[in-house]
Amino acid sequence: MNVYEESLKLHEAHHGKLTVEPKVPCETAWDLSLAYTPGVAQPCLEIQKDPENAYRYTGKGNTVAVITDGTAVLGLGDIGPTAGLPVMEGKALLMKRFAGLDAWPICLDTKDPDEIVDIVKKLAPSFGAVNLEDISAPRCVYIERRLIEECSIPVFHDDQHGTAIAVLAALLNAMKVKKAEPKDMKVVISGAGAAGSSIIRMLYKSGFQKIYAFDKDGCLDPDDSENYDPLKKELLSFVNLDHQHYKNLAEGMKGADIFIGVSAPRLVSKEMIASMNPGAVVFPMANPEPEITYQEAKEAGAYIVGTGRSDFPNQVNNVLVFPGLFRGALDYRATKITEGMQIAAARGLASLVDEKDLSPDHIIVSTLDKRVVPTVAKAVGEEAVREGVVRK
Amino acid sequence: MNVYEESLKLHEAHHGKLTVEPKVPCETAWDLSLAYTPGVAQPCLEIQKDPENAYRYTGKGNTVAVITDGTAVLGLGDIGPTAGLPVMEGKALLMKRFAGLDAWPICLDTKDPDEIVDIVKKLAPSFGAVNLEDISAPRCVYIERRLIEECSIPVFHDDQHGTAIAVLAALLNAMKVKKAEPKDMKVVISGAGAAGSSIIRMLYKSGFQKIYAFDKDGCLDPDDSENYDPLKKELLSFVNLDHQHYKNLAEGMKGADIFIGVSAPRLVSKEMIASMNPGAVVFPMANPEPEITYQEAKEAGAYIVGTGRSDFPNQVNNVLVFPGLFRGALDYRATKITEGMQIAAARGLASLVDEKDLSPDHIIVSTLDKRVVPTVAKAVGEEAVREGVVRK
Repeated sequence: MNVYEESLKLHEAHHGKLTVEPKVPCETAWDLSLAYTPGVAQPCLEIQKDPENAYRYTGKGNTVAVITDGTAVLGLGDIGPTAGLPVMEGKALLMKRFAGLDAWPICLDTKDPDEIVDIVKKLAPSFGAVNLEDISAPRCVYIERRLIEECSIPVFHDDQHGTAIAVLAALLNAMKVKKAEPKDMKVVISGAGAAGSSIIRMLYKSGFQKIYAFDKDGCLDPDDSENYDPLKKELLSFVNLDHQHYKNLAEGMKGADIFIGVSAPRLVSKEMIASMNPGAVVFPMANPEPEITYQEAKEAGAYIVGTGRSDFPNQVNNVLVFPGLFRGALDYRATKITEGMQIAAARGLASLVDEKDLSPDHIIVSTLDKRVVPTVAKAVGEEAVREGVVRK
Repeated sequence: MNVYEESLKLHEAHHGKLTVEPKVPCETAWDLSLAYTPGVAQPCLEIQKDPENAYRYTGKGNTVAVITDGTAVLGLGDIGPTAGLPVMEGKALLMKRFAGLDAWPICLDTKDPDEIVDIVKKLAPSFGAVNLEDISAPRCVYIERRLIEECSIPVFHDDQHGTAIAVLAALLNAMKVKKAEPKDMKVVISGAGAAGSSIIRMLYKSGFQKIYAFDKDGCLDPDDSENYDPLKKELLSFVNLDHQHYKNLAEGMKGADIFIGVSAPRLVSKEMIASMNPGAVVFPMANPEPEITYQEAKEAGAYIVGTGRSDFPNQVNNVLVFPGLFRGALDYRATKITEGMQIAAARGLASLVDEKDLSPDHIIVSTLDKRVVPTVAKAVGEEAVREGVVRK
């Protein structure tokens, strides 16, 4: 039985993956008079005096809403909000498993970006933070940006930034292994959607200056941009600054130092890897099937290879990021998650591999490393304090 | 330390009352590949084929959203959505404690009825049912009615119907103790808000024909109704059919057989009870402090007294109702909760006291009686099937 059949059996046997349990006694009438009426009136009144007291007397400060509209679920596309529910349950499960967070799935029956923004804002009172999930690009960027501006609690779209932060962490360590500087690297990114856009921004802000991005229409090109949507236009501030006119991905990858794939299975051949510079860093991360397999990339001469998968070295996976990031945002009472906090998360994550332990097959720690969450949380929280984006 | 201080301490010690726990293994990488990627794609695809499969592969069918706008929290009034959160957590806790349901609090930052309807409809994909809670009257009636019409899952406003169903159950048994017929009873109801309106409707549909209702403006009177809101006007089909012009509650209670209070503390004196007919049935249920205490009502000559409190006989409390009602609606895949299902719940609940055990101090079973939830669930579910309001 394969992983898909077995997963289906598991989901059917348990009818989902989450259960809500009381964390206070609730057996006797006295128990219930404290947890519910009449006693519960007291915490209500304290919160009415000052809504910040919700962090003291309710679960708000440990609670994350995992919100989707079902438009970009895994690699399956727009399968609808109900069909996205198993993924949201899974995400909530990871939040608990890795960071002790109480997360709850919310699948919205609307695809209208302004309506999604509006609903999420109005859901904010009972949640401590919002994880946007599996919302299609470029809508997701607009939705997240508006929510970061307008929402009273931290909002983070994991598909955009989760992978991007893990990629940056792995690349920072890859630079040490290669003894190279970001500014000298030619970086080629396949995929300029949710994750690709965030990777581009984050790499640029971390010193990578020669970035070329490809999507299904080819190389992002400032001289051919009249039909670009606003977000794609925005990326032109960070990519292809020397106005290359690569005809296709294969041409772009010639002489590249770094390849990052967040696109589609099997887009990259061994020949394309072989055409890169010596010491090539290759992160084919299309999920579940990568742009090129770990073995093929290595056979074709790649020096460092990272994938999203757990069955190969260097698992560059967002599960290294979002649990600690939300843990930190909530523990330090951040009001938002800034780009600075995201970069701090990447640096914190990178720091977990000791300089002396760094090697081509060890540029990032295991997703099961127990130091990940506290380290990322601390990095994120301290940066929030530094930037002053915390509740008074 | 009193119940309020102790409740506050409890809430602070635990930071709220709910925790989300995994109900599938999630330790190893293999566990996670079943619960999350890549395995989770399979249940997603099955639900994409047929959204009803969500009941098979996710928690949807055991999940209740407990939704408020914070406008009528307990007896505290419009304290805002965040301040309502402790009550919603408590309600979710009761759902688990009594009926094994996974309920989650949603506090909405809007008071606009149409917007609330719209948001709740759009939250439906990830929930099996909706419990509206602590929404002020008459808005709550409008909101619930629209949602029952327009929402794909059962919606129930507990403040309206929960208490009403428990009252009807207790009254049906009180009729047996008194050996009286509903049609002969003069019923006086103090309070024509959320609960009062539903009690009026439900009693009328169960054969009570002489009902008089009082609110803060006095007796509902068909000859003085030009300024009534539409819902209050609607009640005139069920109350004061012989056009009485009672000047106040005291005058209305003279010669009454049944008094039901869902209004405010201490509105009823011993003299008013004494002015009722012999064999009076008195349910003073204002919460937490009733219209008149159990002892005072008894001293004044009431034959049967029921309150919402656990420290006196005959606890007429909505906790006898909503857990079993949602259990039944979900187990039988009801698409809505009809008035017929509500009356069936009351009859089921009433049936739990054996005829031979009925007495003035035993017209309703204890809230801790383990037969309550399965009996109410079965009554509700079978009525749903009878009415054809179940998923195919």
